[in-house]
Amino acid sequence: MDVSELVDRTVRGDHRAIARAISLVENGAPELRAIMAGLAPHTGRARVVGLTGPPGVGKSTTTAALVAELRARGAGTAVLAVDPSSPFTGGALLGDRVRMQRHAADGGVFIRSMASRGHLGGLSWATPHALRVLDAAGFAVVLVETVGVGQAEVDIARHADTTVVLCAPGMGDGVQAAKAGVLEIADVFAVNKADRDGAHATVRELRQMVGQADRAEGEWRPPIVSTVAADGTGVAELLDRIDAHDAHLRRTGELERRRRARAREEVEAIAVGALRERLADVHGHAALDALADRVAAGGTDPYAAADTLLAAVADAG
Amino acid sequence: MDVSELVDRTVRGDHRAIARAISLVENGAPELRAIMAGLAPHTGRARVVGLTGPPGVGKSTTTAALVAELRARGAGTAVLAVDPSSPFTGGALLGDRVRMQRHAADGGVFIRSMASRGHLGGLSWATPHALRVLDAAGFAVVLVETVGVGQAEVDIARHADTTVVLCAPGMGDGVQAAKAGVLEIADVFAVNKADRDGAHATVRELRQMVGQADRAEGEWRPPIVSTVAADGTGVAELLDRIDAHDAHLRRTGELERRRRARAREEVEAIAVGALRERLADVHGHAALDALADRVAAGGTDPYAAADTLLAAVADAG
Repeated sequence: MDVSELVDRTVRGDHRAIARAISLVENGAPELRAIMAGLAPHTGRARVVGLTGPPGVGKSTTTAALVAELRARGAGTAVLAVDPSSPFTGGALLGDRVRMQRHAADGGVFIRSMASRGHLGGLSWATPHALRVLDAAGFAVVLVETVGVGQAEVDIARHADTTVVLCAPGMGDGVQAAKAGVLEIADVFAVNKADRDGAHATVRELRQMVGQADRAEGEWRPPIVSTVAADGTGVAELLDRIDAHDAHLRRTGELERRRRARAREEVEAIAVGALRERLADVHGHAALDALADRVAAGGTDPYAAADTLLAAVADAG
Repeated sequence: MDVSELVDRTVRGDHRAIARAISLVENGAPELRAIMAGLAPHTGRARVVGLTGPPGVGKSTTTAALVAELRARGAGTAVLAVDPSSPFTGGALLGDRVRMQRHAADGGVFIRSMASRGHLGGLSWATPHALRVLDAAGFAVVLVETVGVGQAEVDIARHADTTVVLCAPGMGDGVQAAKAGVLEIADVFAVNKADRDGAHATVRELRQMVGQADRAEGEWRPPIVSTVAADGTGVAELLDRIDAHDAHLRRTGELERRRRARAREEVEAIAVGALRERLADVHGHAALDALADRVAAGGTDPYAAADTLLAAVADAG
């Protein structure tokens, strides 16, 4: 499959082509540039919904339940499970996708896990690129689920129009959520496993936190929905609230603002990546290694070393 | 205090000057360049020991106990608690430093928390810079404790000569540690709260994991030490193991290799930061904003937009 065929098939919603395009994203393939150029005119329509929350809260189950509800309402749906796996292993710690299998035969649903390795923004464009592929493929809704904790949970909000933060009773999630900065990224809260002890307390705690936040006139106030994703309870309401947030974003012009900000980050990440490659390439890694030796030995400071490196890049440019 | 006075006083171990220098690091002050140049000849001696592990495992207590043990052995000791706080709050979620207060009157101990805000490598040089200050100030050992979970736990290993990973019984830490990639960064394991139920099981689980790892002849095998940091049990042994790892690093030349790699990352981060500033400055943010609008609207793709941006930088350079 050459690039133009891959683009054509992806735009027509061919699952094999979509999967291939995302693999190319994952591997940072050189064809990406041409693929992204081909897909660009077909982008800008999909709604991106992020799902995040601590391990054990029922993210995969909730995602599966939302897929079922979206399909019942006729919306083409893609699921992207992003695994910002350890830069040390390079291995994907793939979540349990088994519960998704019941959707596997449905052409209107596409499910994919993706590793987004690297650190310091190394592959910071991987998730936006994959979303770009799924958007161009015509899915009305893309659910992005993060595998991982801490910063990974927070980062997902940078890619989504609407971010759903999942909590569960009895995990001290309220406090954990606040700690990780997750509270501030929530557009909708779902208290999952709401049939368990302590669910009311969790809802109450969240309501209190939401109530305490300063909010301008007309600003969105994150609703809190109780769900039992395993049997579908509350999932229709959860989707209604997600839709309400989407309507709010469109009404206020915030959707466009968020999407612009995302495009800006994506462009900047690519430009910085290109500059970083020039640093490594121009004089080879040897120049940087020699400078690093001098810095480690106290013979120079890192700023003077960086100046030397940049001068070398400028000379070669 | 001008820069040369600040450098002089820092090198003499003046606590106020050290604190001021780290505040300048935290704020990304323009004087940093001159300060780092002044400190460079005095660097390269401190041993950097990282402490990491999930919340509730007893990191602060263990740090305090290690400080007491190091002081008893006559080693000047600094503690740097790094808080990679949410880019959304910008606020420091400062750990409980109260237990450290008993060392506050001891001139051989310096304790400091530092926020390292930003993401995508924005302030990726903040921790190395602060370590550079403490190194030049003459502390024999710098303990770096991370506040935060997930990637933050793993990142600390990039700054340390020796990384201690803390676990505690009954938190499912073994599995959690493996998940976060923390297992692979451990030079020494401490099972804290070893007087609690399940401590033996945690030690056994860790021993099994350590045993399963492929290891070359002569390669370091992370020891597992049981501690009750709250009453000092096992802390002398923990420090002995940290010392043994240091001796191993020196014997094998690995210490020099690790320090070079760190210097390389530090130089590269500064150079990339400078390039990133050029992207923003040359034509102002307006150029990037206009490109982002076109990308968001599907009028161009992010690679073409990045090319345009880089061409503008080259023209202005």
